[in-house]
Amino acid sequence: MDIAQQPPTIAVIGLGLIGGSLALATHALGITTLGFARDQQTRKAAAEAGLRVTDSLDALLAGLDGNSIVVIATPLVAALELLPQIIAQTPDQVTVTDVVSVKSPLHEAALRSAAPHRFVGAHPMAGTTESGFGAAHIDLLQQARWAITLDESTDMQRAAAVFELAIAAGGTVTPLTSEQHDRSVAWISHIPHIIAETLAAGANWQPALGLGAGSFRDATRVASTRPELVEQMIGSNPFLAETLREYIDQLEHAHSALSNHGRLLPILQAGHLGRTTWEQRNTDSRATVTVEIDLRHQRAKAQLLQIGRAGGYLISCSTQLATALVFDPDAPLTGE
Amino acid sequence: MDIAQQPPTIAVIGLGLIGGSLALATHALGITTLGFARDQQTRKAAAEAGLRVTDSLDALLAGLDGNSIVVIATPLVAALELLPQIIAQTPDQVTVTDVVSVKSPLHEAALRSAAPHRFVGAHPMAGTTESGFGAAHIDLLQQARWAITLDESTDMQRAAAVFELAIAAGGTVTPLTSEQHDRSVAWISHIPHIIAETLAAGANWQPALGLGAGSFRDATRVASTRPELVEQMIGSNPFLAETLREYIDQLEHAHSALSNHGRLLPILQAGHLGRTTWEQRNTDSRATVTVEIDLRHQRAKAQLLQIGRAGGYLISCSTQLATALVFDPDAPLTGE
Repeated sequence: MDIAQQPPTIAVIGLGLIGGSLALATHALGITTLGFARDQQTRKAAAEAGLRVTDSLDALLAGLDGNSIVVIATPLVAALELLPQIIAQTPDQVTVTDVVSVKSPLHEAALRSAAPHRFVGAHPMAGTTESGFGAAHIDLLQQARWAITLDESTDMQRAAAVFELAIAAGGTVTPLTSEQHDRSVAWISHIPHIIAETLAAGANWQPALGLGAGSFRDATRVASTRPELVEQMIGSNPFLAETLREYIDQLEHAHSALSNHGRLLPILQAGHLGRTTWEQRNTDSRATVTVEIDLRHQRAKAQLLQIGRAGGYLISCSTQLATALVFDPDAPLTGE
Repeated sequence: MDIAQQPPTIAVIGLGLIGGSLALATHALGITTLGFARDQQTRKAAAEAGLRVTDSLDALLAGLDGNSIVVIATPLVAALELLPQIIAQTPDQVTVTDVVSVKSPLHEAALRSAAPHRFVGAHPMAGTTESGFGAAHIDLLQQARWAITLDESTDMQRAAAVFELAIAAGGTVTPLTSEQHDRSVAWISHIPHIIAETLAAGANWQPALGLGAGSFRDATRVASTRPELVEQMIGSNPFLAETLREYIDQLEHAHSALSNHGRLLPILQAGHLGRTTWEQRNTDSRATVTVEIDLRHQRAKAQLLQIGRAGGYLISCSTQLATALVFDPDAPLTGE
């Protein structure tokens, strides 16, 4: 299943912001792309944009040969229902992936299905505050980082095909387990949402609002998102409560330092280091080295997970070989 | 002391980012402006930029007539020392103000001085991540919101002169007590700093950093600030520990909802409302009405504090009359 040599058919279920953008991108690359959406207006808009759209899910699934990847691009609740159904209704060679922003619930749904190894979870870290096919754009996934999950049940050849899809769509790939993904997004996305909401609620008294400027704007920006969407996103992360407890412990630590005239500086220094490290990882290409992973080797999965844990990411992939950028642990942090 | 009719002399002590920018702005307005900085290089740079700079603090203070405002624009520790000293060394008619980002400690220092009524605390909400006279700019305080404090000890005529100064420099004014100021900045600036630092520290493990994107960037932006500066700023807010406790309580509430499959939605809705209200306050000029306050009247201080508490702000001021914009409580919030 080599996208460059013999591209698979891509079947996208759900043509919203992410699904629609992915379908537009693979279609533009000349990859056979089929789409389905429950909403008739969405199907019409997608067809008008040049996509091949089926009128029913059954019609979509019936049209797939073995060399196909089904991308579930619906909200979580629908995805959990669709996953076993698609595995049951398609030939064994068909690989199933998704773009939902939590991964453990889907991994568990796959484990309960007839063929867990056919599922490879994915989460492209892209989006805007808008949603729906109207907001989809052929370039949305350019430069997007995809988290793609490698669990014990995951088949490496199928994972490689999903890596290829993500990279063909203009992205790069962080390989990690479903649990690592959910713990990571708890820190980098779900806790930031809770922080923003509770801060905006707490500061909702005058005159604080009258004085709120840059720091307040940045710290509460994501609180503009519709509460129902946020609830759906963060409410389904099974590791969020535990991560939030760790975070509250850190705030308690800061509170003790403040109330007992203790040393606040070490806490501030740890935060500054975390932010600086993140900036380095995102800006300093000199600190990276290239690593090649032989995907036919038994150790490939462990190697890929090690790369993901170390903050590395895949920049190219075929059925046999993946190329990753990893951060050179010996390179000095600049700007310190 | 009417800036338009008979402008006071402005004496700025400390010519860093804020002090330097204020001195450049008043000088450009044709107001007699004197400056002093402890650092000789700073004095040289300020003189080269056209400012009248004295070689010593004594020389600066000796040159002041009654119609003068001294602006203490040093870091907090130096400001606490300078305040009683300046009150002791200058004629009774001279008004003393400052630009430090906490207000209660200065108010208390004024109460311990020989003439508390001569001090009016101020905090222009402006800044960049840079510091020093090299970063000062004549336009830095354009559109800046100034918090100016009205405590029991504050003389209204002197407060009016400081209002005028802030407005002449291109700003608007939120009148509030020192305690209200410090509680407000705890919510809108100091807690956001603690949040950003603890989040960046907590997420400082891979692969979380590899996936961090927009939400994480915004939520941790202020953690780029030098830890020593942050410690100085937030460590001196006497109301921060108490406010942080209130904030942690809100996170505990969110944690309970998450762990007990409780209702997260009401928390998210409260946050969304806070953010939306703030956006309205900052963007929707149609929702404001104009109010005039007779500053000669005994009720002026109470009226001004009421305006500040309601999120209103002064847009013009003379010795006799202040004009404020306040939000119309009957105007509907749009965008909901």
